[in-house]
Amino acid sequence: MISRLAIVGVGLLGGSLAKAARARGLAREIVGVGRDAARLSSALRDGALDRATTDLGEGLRGADVAVLAVPVLVIEHMLPAVAAAAGKETLVTDVGSTKAAIVRAAEALAAARPFRFVGSHPMAGSERAGYGAARVDLFERATVIVTPTDATPPEAVKVVTGLWEGIGARVRQLDPATHDRVVAAISHLPHLVAFALVAGAHRFEASSFAFAAGGFRDTTRVAAADPVMWQEIFHGNREAVLASLGRFRGALAELERLVEGDDVAGLREWIAGAKALREAMA
Amino acid sequence: MISRLAIVGVGLLGGSLAKAARARGLAREIVGVGRDAARLSSALRDGALDRATTDLGEGLRGADVAVLAVPVLVIEHMLPAVAAAAGKETLVTDVGSTKAAIVRAAEALAAARPFRFVGSHPMAGSERAGYGAARVDLFERATVIVTPTDATPPEAVKVVTGLWEGIGARVRQLDPATHDRVVAAISHLPHLVAFALVAGAHRFEASSFAFAAGGFRDTTRVAAADPVMWQEIFHGNREAVLASLGRFRGALAELERLVEGDDVAGLREWIAGAKALREAMA
Repeated sequence: MISRLAIVGVGLLGGSLAKAARARGLAREIVGVGRDAARLSSALRDGALDRATTDLGEGLRGADVAVLAVPVLVIEHMLPAVAAAAGKETLVTDVGSTKAAIVRAAEALAAARPFRFVGSHPMAGSERAGYGAARVDLFERATVIVTPTDATPPEAVKVVTGLWEGIGARVRQLDPATHDRVVAAISHLPHLVAFALVAGAHRFEASSFAFAAGGFRDTTRVAAADPVMWQEIFHGNREAVLASLGRFRGALAELERLVEGDDVAGLREWIAGAKALREAMA
Repeated sequence: MISRLAIVGVGLLGGSLAKAARARGLAREIVGVGRDAARLSSALRDGALDRATTDLGEGLRGADVAVLAVPVLVIEHMLPAVAAAAGKETLVTDVGSTKAAIVRAAEALAAARPFRFVGSHPMAGSERAGYGAARVDLFERATVIVTPTDATPPEAVKVVTGLWEGIGARVRQLDPATHDRVVAAISHLPHLVAFALVAGAHRFEASSFAFAAGGFRDTTRVAAADPVMWQEIFHGNREAVLASLGRFRGALAELERLVEGDDVAGLREWIAGAKALREAMA
């Protein structure tokens, strides 16, 4: 059992974590840290938090586990202050959707002073944000990717794994660089493509949107996501995003040549290959 | 009321049409035409058809309405025989998902002999095919695009509109070329992109598919579609598909430059524009 769980950022993810940890009796005390005391008050009121503070040092003091549940760019900017405020007893993890830069920064800080950090990426969320959207079951059956490196003590991985499994998630491990390639492939690239698809289809034939049916709605659903968050994610994982985009463009160019030409069998075969990959996933 | 409704091709669409027309008492007699008598027998058995034949001339004889419910390339190849077999009393329509080539071919035939044709595209279907997948409610609340030209008598449009509305569909009109651009934008391009996305993501990081969550599944759902059908559609609507692809590539290149660069505001603005278009659709 965790004695004191500190959650920095009590929005959708942090708030859902607080609610789930409370409901499952995972921590004796849950402390929320935020910039805006008024925003923390509803989590205090409904009992998800025991204490709330706008002071990072006060919030982290004596915590055995701290979770940074703020936007991914904020995590990077906040890490030096977190490393300075966290005691030796505090194991810090996060919820950022890219991992290599964060883990690299954490390990650089750990070279100068004791700082225990293990990266986490809970693959859960929704188009909504803020504590009002937080749900006690947000992490149930969700996958959380934990990203230890050769420098991470196994004990630290165990604690972080226990936290996520304790609220019903499934934990898998990847090294930070592979994690970033995986999320580029299955999340960042698809979002980029969906944004471009909405724009491209509209430029080509604006009147078409009045006829949009299920297929187009499915394919472009993720394009309704938050622009600030996605700008941060695309820039934060720029290298893997651009590399995956290169592979996508290559595949698209092959398809385009097959549509241009009269190679009926070649086009069918290419499509059948993509269909087989998609069906193996489902 | 239709005296004799002929349905050429009793698969998913033709079979659903037969069931719906029967259930709603839309036609006194429903005749099915197919290549394979055995395949027609289940539609006869369950009462969706009154008669079945493998002979096109016999099937069309005396029909006041005939619906060509075969794959889009087959429609084009079949049109001369249909024009030869159809009487002056027969109004012919189809279910093809591209329209310009079919309507052009029909009007060329009509220049030589009496041949009444109006193109239709019911935007209904599923990943499944064949009479076994046919459903009495497939067309309910579906949109059917009917594509008359300046040469089409209003009376013919009225009959075809009555047929689709009679089985619960909503009818909208577009000229054949605009229709083909609209379906390129909202259906053909998204399929092409989904096929390329599955292939590109897999080439970039094959291990990523083990982590695929809701967003990726949504975005690539249509990539599980039938390769033979989609090869025919892409080649059949080649011009509009390639032109829409050009617009998509342009949008993608803009996004790529914004991700490569450090223009935070520009990237947010671009994404916000796409999000707004997507939300206006929903």
